[in-house]
Amino acid sequence: MCAENGDRKLCIICSKGSLDMAYPGLVLANAALMEGIDVIMFFTFWGLDIVNKKKMEHLKVTPIGNPSMGIPNSVAGLPGMTNLATVMMRREIEKLDFPLVEEFLQMIADAGGKLYGCKMSMDMMHLTRDDLFAEVEAVVGATDFMEMSEGAQIIFV
Amino acid sequence: MCAENGDRKLCIICSKGSLDMAYPGLVLANAALMEGIDVIMFFTFWGLDIVNKKKMEHLKVTPIGNPSMGIPNSVAGLPGMTNLATVMMRREIEKLDFPLVEEFLQMIADAGGKLYGCKMSMDMMHLTRDDLFAEVEAVVGATDFMEMSEGAQIIFV
Amino acid sequence: MCAENGDRKLCIICSKGSLDMAYPGLVLANAALMEGIDVIMFFTFWGLDIVNKKKMEHLKVTPIGNPSMGIPNSVAGLPGMTNLATVMMRREIEKLDFPLVEEFLQMIADAGGKLYGCKMSMDMMHLTRDDLFAEVEAVVGATDFMEMSEGAQIIFV
Repeated sequence: MCAENGDRKLCIICSKGSLDMAYPGLVLANAALMEGIDVIMFFTFWGLDIVNKKKMEHLKVTPIGNPSMGIPNSVAGLPGMTNLATVMMRREIEKLDFPLVEEFLQMIADAGGKLYGCKMSMDMMHLTRDDLFAEVEAVVGATDFMEMSEGAQIIFV
Repeated sequence: MCAENGDRKLCIICSKGSLDMAYPGLVLANAALMEGIDVIMFFTFWGLDIVNKKKMEHLKVTPIGNPSMGIPNSVAGLPGMTNLATVMMRREIEKLDFPLVEEFLQMIADAGGKLYGCKMSMDMMHLTRDDLFAEVEAVVGATDFMEMSEGAQIIFV
Repeated sequence: MCAENGDRKLCIICSKGSLDMAYPGLVLANAALMEGIDVIMFFTFWGLDIVNKKKMEHLKVTPIGNPSMGIPNSVAGLPGMTNLATVMMRREIEKLDFPLVEEFLQMIADAGGKLYGCKMSMDMMHLTRDDLFAEVEAVVGATDFMEMSEGAQIIFV
């Protein structure tokens, strides 16, 4: 940030695995890359779902506990409501021509964005490197992340 | 951040539309302005509710899925519990003489804070500029936000 | 951030009081201290639970409203599910030899990390300094926090 434009760096920590909280990180990463900013994405806790090969295309949005979706919790908790909300949100995302999660991550990697999994979270969830999207650079610890993020703007999603 | 005090800049991305997650952004924006720091607020995803004229004074807090509120989910999901929690929180906010959302945003705008809506999110939610609080400066994309936030501290709420 | 390595500073705002959202702040704080980075933790809103003596060892994780936990909301809301999820997560944390919350905070304080409570939130929740963990440095307002965080990287959890 202190250096010339070309050295600006953005680190995005993705800690949530819901569809609605996956996109803000992806959109910001993509926008930053388009502006010539270096991008590092660090997937931790529930955010590992975004780069988990078995889960990345099945992220869900749930209307429960989110007053912004306008569905009372007593209804939002009924079976099928999460699927309904997810289908509706996916449709809106497609209408806007935003890519699905895997395609979006591939675009980010192709544009030079670096993807990392959080070691502690992977151990906690019993995941190995093979469970992750191929473009994930490496699995690293929090101290490694602190080194990488020196001089960067950091966003925790 | 690298320049003298007067050039410090804070960008707050507001992505949540619940009452309890609206206030942290508003409080930090206001505090920063009082300290002479430039403030940009970017309302995206559910955070658009904070500047949505029809919703801004009706933000809710829900006790479900939030163990800090101390209400078991089996009770928290009952009809009326969200309203009860919301009424109680509003009362505490008023007791502390903190302004309501619209008044708070007006104070922030009057003090020079800049408010922006996120274009992608507005398209997704079928909102237009007319749906937003009058003091919202403009509706911009994520790349515009990346340009505005150069050299800033960024907080994602 | 603009100065030499030794002057790097990280401010972590902890706004959530659930077990799964307490650890990211604690882990990052600890990692930063190990890298020689100055650390300030600011506990606000629900995040005050993390330094609330009566609550800090009883933080919970709830499977409701979190699609990443893979439990349908209609089941996740049943009595006992929050306790079950909490017991399971605590077991994983222990297996990885990560300390419990109080011990973790003590480590952070011993390593020079500074802990602060948010005055507005404490007033809202009717808490006093005596309710907080002994290592909390002080209770301060948002403008104080803005002063402390000058030149820092800020993370909002």
